[in-house]
Amino acid sequence: MKPAELPTPALVVDLPTLEENVATMARRWPGESLRPHVKAFKSTALAKLLDRVGHHGFCAATLREVEGMADAGLGADILLANETLDTDRLAALARRDDLRLTIAVDSIETIEAAAAGGVGEVLIDVCVGLPRCGCEPADAGRLADLARDRGLAVRGVMGYEGHIVGLEDRSDRRNGTDASMADLAAAHQLVGGAVVSGGGTGTWDLNSSVTELQAGSYTLMDTAYAALDLPFTQALTVAGTVLSVNRSRGFAVADVGLKALGMDHGLPRVEGHDVWFCSDEHVTFAPRDETPWPSVGQAISVLPAHVDPTVAYHERMHVVRDDEVVDVWPVDLRNW
Amino acid sequence: MKPAELPTPALVVDLPTLEENVATMARRWPGESLRPHVKAFKSTALAKLLDRVGHHGFCAATLREVEGMADAGLGADILLANETLDTDRLAALARRDDLRLTIAVDSIETIEAAAAGGVGEVLIDVCVGLPRCGCEPADAGRLADLARDRGLAVRGVMGYEGHIVGLEDRSDRRNGTDASMADLAAAHQLVGGAVVSGGGTGTWDLNSSVTELQAGSYTLMDTAYAALDLPFTQALTVAGTVLSVNRSRGFAVADVGLKALGMDHGLPRVEGHDVWFCSDEHVTFAPRDETPWPSVGQAISVLPAHVDPTVAYHERMHVVRDDEVVDVWPVDLRNW
Repeated sequence: MKPAELPTPALVVDLPTLEENVATMARRWPGESLRPHVKAFKSTALAKLLDRVGHHGFCAATLREVEGMADAGLGADILLANETLDTDRLAALARRDDLRLTIAVDSIETIEAAAAGGVGEVLIDVCVGLPRCGCEPADAGRLADLARDRGLAVRGVMGYEGHIVGLEDRSDRRNGTDASMADLAAAHQLVGGAVVSGGGTGTWDLNSSVTELQAGSYTLMDTAYAALDLPFTQALTVAGTVLSVNRSRGFAVADVGLKALGMDHGLPRVEGHDVWFCSDEHVTFAPRDETPWPSVGQAISVLPAHVDPTVAYHERMHVVRDDEVVDVWPVDLRNW
Repeated sequence: MKPAELPTPALVVDLPTLEENVATMARRWPGESLRPHVKAFKSTALAKLLDRVGHHGFCAATLREVEGMADAGLGADILLANETLDTDRLAALARRDDLRLTIAVDSIETIEAAAAGGVGEVLIDVCVGLPRCGCEPADAGRLADLARDRGLAVRGVMGYEGHIVGLEDRSDRRNGTDASMADLAAAHQLVGGAVVSGGGTGTWDLNSSVTELQAGSYTLMDTAYAALDLPFTQALTVAGTVLSVNRSRGFAVADVGLKALGMDHGLPRVEGHDVWFCSDEHVTFAPRDETPWPSVGQAISVLPAHVDPTVAYHERMHVVRDDEVVDVWPVDLRNW
């Protein structure tokens, strides 16, 4: 099948572009020095592609992602890079012999939950500037001691410079990363352990202090990351069909709307067109300059602004090589 | 089960509030004068509640919604209030004897698709100011003639004043609705037929010219519509769990993020708190004024800014009455 024949809206992954992104990242972060973040693509089929090139450890953001990765035979070394209080589901995961699970903890409560759930290993999650989870760097040693008191193995620290990864200016990104990683190193001094986990697609070549990089968006990319000076190319589009053309009012409409796109980073892009707005099931756009008017029924490609919440709306990705759909990957890690 | 015990994030519907919203709307638009739009809630269980109070006709925005409603025995009179070129799926729907389907058309191409798919009935979709689908009012008669030439029954017109429904000032909404409905009336003059379909939650008591109101958001509501002077109350929240509290930096974090919330209308609300931002699986917020600091593990409620794309992320809604979960409704109409 041709991608232009897909029922729309539909996620489309350009496989050669994805493979090139994966190869570029693997040259700088080979094997287990990269811990790909499955939250960006939520597909065990895509994770298997990464596993085949040597990345055997993964990051997850939800328990559902951990469970799904283990079910798919990819549980060799999963880091739940997030806090949880769900001792029941942790206990079920702790009983599995096909899973090595490490979880992030940043408080007495999350340490008690890990211990009660029978999780063996943790990282101390450290706030390195992003106002999200993570303890104060100076408090990391106390929490590590507490975790060890509770019988948990502390593998090290993690800290995500999420407030830095999207900065457009490269020197701002470099300086911000250095400051964040100084905080993480200070915490690591207090905690010990072999692992210093952090970083992301936006700081992939600026963060040189982590022992493992947590990156996921680099695989499929989005317009937000494409605005930076990164060597990764957008592999993901949402295929749509033009439903309506109104030349007198100067716009056209396709069937890629709010329910097919993560909107937190703003409007998607349509090459050669200005996007006016999205509603539930529509994107309204207008041809720019020399771009010819589209016709009703024509296939179009929409470039999402933020990959993670876009993928999470879809049941499957259609994998394309040389203008043929060569595979279909279920988005099997969505929901919680 | 108590709603505070649900695994999070989870959609929670307060049933008494929903029932009150439904009753308020049904007093003004009883029976089939209301054509509830299932895109707002994507649940046949909620649609059945509306069917039981006399609303037997429904609007859908996708073919999946049409198929699911028919499968659930709710296919008495479904309007696909959207354009489609998918003749294969239309043909499959046209063969069903448990479905009366009317579809919106606004071009030669969509009329040809309806005829090729064997759909018997259409409405001429008219642009009444919102730059989305819909023909020019003056062109509606020509399209109706063309549709009749192709053997389609033209039931009338539809036109959605979507650029008006969210205006905060009531007189702006009134004047905008009047202007839009004048355009729709002019088109109706050219088209004929018994049906004039339009309107929405924001113009529910201002639009007096349609023969049937297309409203869906009034059932569950959201913070965007709650900012207007409407008698409908928010029945939908996203239940979350506080994962992390950082008093020294002044914020707390819960597990309700971008993948649990439609973000096109901006940040969600947490009562008594200022919401700072959302990331994939987190909302960061800070207590306001007298609000006490939350504790790790505490249950919180997040109020989404836009109901439709919020619901579309979730597998199910948990229905609550008197602080007990009394039912679980699958979000069985999501995807396409």
